[in-house]
Amino acid sequence: MTEEQLKEFLANLPEKPGKVTTPDEFKVGVIGPNHGHIFGMCRALKDCGAGISVVYDDDPKLVEAFRKQFPEARIASSEDEVLHDPSLKMIASSTIASERGPLGVRVMRAGKDYFVDKTPFTTQAQIDEARLVWKETGRRYFCYFSERVHTEAGVFAGYLIDAGVIGRVLQVIGMGPHRVGNPASRPAWFWNKEQYGGILCDIGSHQIEQYLFYSGAKDAKVVSSRVANYNHKGTGLEDFGDAVLTGDNGTTNYFRVDWFTPDGLSNWGDGRTVILGTEGHIELRKFVDLANGAGGMVLWADKDGEHKLNVSGLVGYPFFGQIIRDSLDGTETAMTQEYIFKAAELCVACEDRATVIE
Amino acid sequence: MTEEQLKEFLANLPEKPGKVTTPDEFKVGVIGPNHGHIFGMCRALKDCGAGISVVYDDDPKLVEAFRKQFPEARIASSEDEVLHDPSLKMIASSTIASERGPLGVRVMRAGKDYFVDKTPFTTQAQIDEARLVWKETGRRYFCYFSERVHTEAGVFAGYLIDAGVIGRVLQVIGMGPHRVGNPASRPAWFWNKEQYGGILCDIGSHQIEQYLFYSGAKDAKVVSSRVANYNHKGTGLEDFGDAVLTGDNGTTNYFRVDWFTPDGLSNWGDGRTVILGTEGHIELRKFVDLANGAGGMVLWADKDGEHKLNVSGLVGYPFFGQIIRDSLDGTETAMTQEYIFKAAELCVACEDRATVIE
Repeated sequence: MTEEQLKEFLANLPEKPGKVTTPDEFKVGVIGPNHGHIFGMCRALKDCGAGISVVYDDDPKLVEAFRKQFPEARIASSEDEVLHDPSLKMIASSTIASERGPLGVRVMRAGKDYFVDKTPFTTQAQIDEARLVWKETGRRYFCYFSERVHTEAGVFAGYLIDAGVIGRVLQVIGMGPHRVGNPASRPAWFWNKEQYGGILCDIGSHQIEQYLFYSGAKDAKVVSSRVANYNHKGTGLEDFGDAVLTGDNGTTNYFRVDWFTPDGLSNWGDGRTVILGTEGHIELRKFVDLANGAGGMVLWADKDGEHKLNVSGLVGYPFFGQIIRDSLDGTETAMTQEYIFKAAELCVACEDRATVIE
Repeated sequence: MTEEQLKEFLANLPEKPGKVTTPDEFKVGVIGPNHGHIFGMCRALKDCGAGISVVYDDDPKLVEAFRKQFPEARIASSEDEVLHDPSLKMIASSTIASERGPLGVRVMRAGKDYFVDKTPFTTQAQIDEARLVWKETGRRYFCYFSERVHTEAGVFAGYLIDAGVIGRVLQVIGMGPHRVGNPASRPAWFWNKEQYGGILCDIGSHQIEQYLFYSGAKDAKVVSSRVANYNHKGTGLEDFGDAVLTGDNGTTNYFRVDWFTPDGLSNWGDGRTVILGTEGHIELRKFVDLANGAGGMVLWADKDGEHKLNVSGLVGYPFFGQIIRDSLDGTETAMTQEYIFKAAELCVACEDRATVIE
C-alpha cells in the first residue's frame, strides 16, 4: 500500500455506524449482570438507539451497580417477568459463564433473542441444546467477543484484510494476557473452573473467534492445547493456557492466554494479534502500545512499506447495530449463528482436550 | 524496576567483551563458507582477537567471496590441508546444512574444535555420531545461533531475566519471519529439504535455542509441530512451520518461522521474542521496530512500569570470546556441549514429527 493508496483506503472506509433503531422499537432486558462486560454491551446497544428497559438479578448489589450506569432500567422482580415481557426484543446477560447456555435456552424459548457475554458456553451439551432450540424457535444466540467487535483495531484489521493488503491470510497468533487485580475483588465463580469454564474456554474464546474471523476458516481442528495453574495455587484458576488450531482452509492459529499482566502495565493487558499473510503481516496493539502509550494501534508491513496507525475514532463498532438489525430483520449480517456456535465448540474442545502442566 | 533500579542495573551490566586472544594464539580455518553467516561468525571471532587463517571450498566463487572480506586468509588446496594444519585451533563452517554434521565429525577427529552455522545438524543419526566423537575426542561442536548470541537485544534479555525482573519465566514465544528475496540468488540447496533440513530444523533452530536459554529448560517434549509450503509450489521449500514444546521444568514454548517477509519491510524479518514471567514480560524487536525504525529494541513491563530501551552498543556479544576461551581452556562458559546437542535434537524432532499442511 503506497501512501496514495492508504489515503484512498482511509477515504473509502465503511461509514462509522450510527443509530439503527429507537428505544421504543428495540427494548433490551438484562438478566444476570455478573460480569462488568454487561456495561460495554448495553452502552454499545444504547449508542445504536436501543432502549435498556429492565434489569433482573437475585443479587440486589448487581442490580444496583447496573442501575448506576443505566438508571432508565426498571427493576424486575423475577427472571420470568423479564423473559415474558412482550415489549422486549432482546435479553442481554453476563451471568456466570456456566449459566449462560441454560439462560440462553430459556430466553429463546420465551421468543426473544439473546446477547451474552463471552464465553457463550462452558460445555458441548449446552451448545447442542442451544443449537436445537435455535432451530426450533428461530431465535438468535449472539455473543460479545469484545476483543474484536469492541476494539477499533480489531475492526480495522478486518478491513485491511478484505482489501487484500497482506495477500492471503495464512496464520493468526493471539496473545491475551489479563490482570487478576485484587483477588478479593473477584467473585467466587472467578476461581471455580466449573463456573468460569477454564481459561481456554473463557478468555481463550476471544482468540478463537478472532482466528475464525480473520482467517475465514469455517471449522478447525484442535491440534494441541495446554493449561496450567503456575502461580495461583490453592485456587481453581487456570492462570495460563495455549492452543494450536488448524483450519479447514489450511490456515493456522496459535494463541496464549494468561493472568500474568504485571502491576506496572498501564492497562489490564498487553493483548496482541499478529496476522500473517502471503504478502504482509498485521500487528494489533489493542489496549496498550507497550512503553509507548495507548492502544488502538494497527501496524503492518506490506509490499510497499511499513505502516502504523492509531485507528481510534476511525471505524467505530459496527457489530452492535448489526445484531440489532439482525434481530429486527431476521438477517445474519453481524455473524452467522453457525459461526458463533462453531467458535464456542472450539473453545470447549480446546479446554476439554487440554494437557495440564504440573 | 523503578527508574532508579534501572539506572543501577545499567551501570552494573557485565563489561562489554573485548579481545580474549591473539591472531597467533587462536587461528581459525574455514571450510565450506556456503551461507553468508560465515562472515558474521568470522568477523566476531576476529573482533575477539582470533586470526582468520585459511579457507577452503571446492567452489572457487565461495572462496573468492570469503577472501573479499577476509583477505588475510590464505587459500588451501584441499579440505584435508585445513583439517591437518597443526596451527589451527578451530574450524568454522557454514556449509550446506546436511553436510555440517559429517564435517564436524571430521574436524573433531582431526583434533580441532568446530564452530558451525545453525542449524548444526539435519538428522538424529548425525547428532548421535557427533556426540560419540565428542566423548571420544573431547573436541567441541559449537553452533552459531545468531538470533540470540549475535543480537544485543538477545543478550540483554538474558541479563534482565537473570536479574529477576520478570519473576519466574513461564513461556517463550518466538516469531522468525525471513525473506526469500530474489529466488535466483538462492543456491540450489536452499530449495532442497534434504539439504537445508526443513524449516523447523533450519531457521527453527534459532527459536529452540532461545527457548532453552531463556526458560532454563534442560530438555523438552515436542507437543505438536506443523510445516507447509503455502506459496512456493514446485520447490522443496517449506515456507511455514511452527511448533509447541513443553520443557522439563514446566515452562512452555511456541514458535513460528516462515519465509513471508514482505517486500516493503525495511529489514529481512520482523523477528520477535516474547518472554512471559510471573511478574512481567519482555518483548524483543531484534531486527526492526515495525514502522518505528531500527531493531535492537527491548521492551518490558514489570511490577513498577513499562520500559523501552534501544540496547545497541550496550552489551556486545559475549558468546564469541567465550567459545574462544572455552576452546583454549577446556571450559564450558559459553554453553555446554549437551545444551547444543539438546537444541539440535529438538530441531530434528520438531521437523521429523511435523504434520504437513496441504
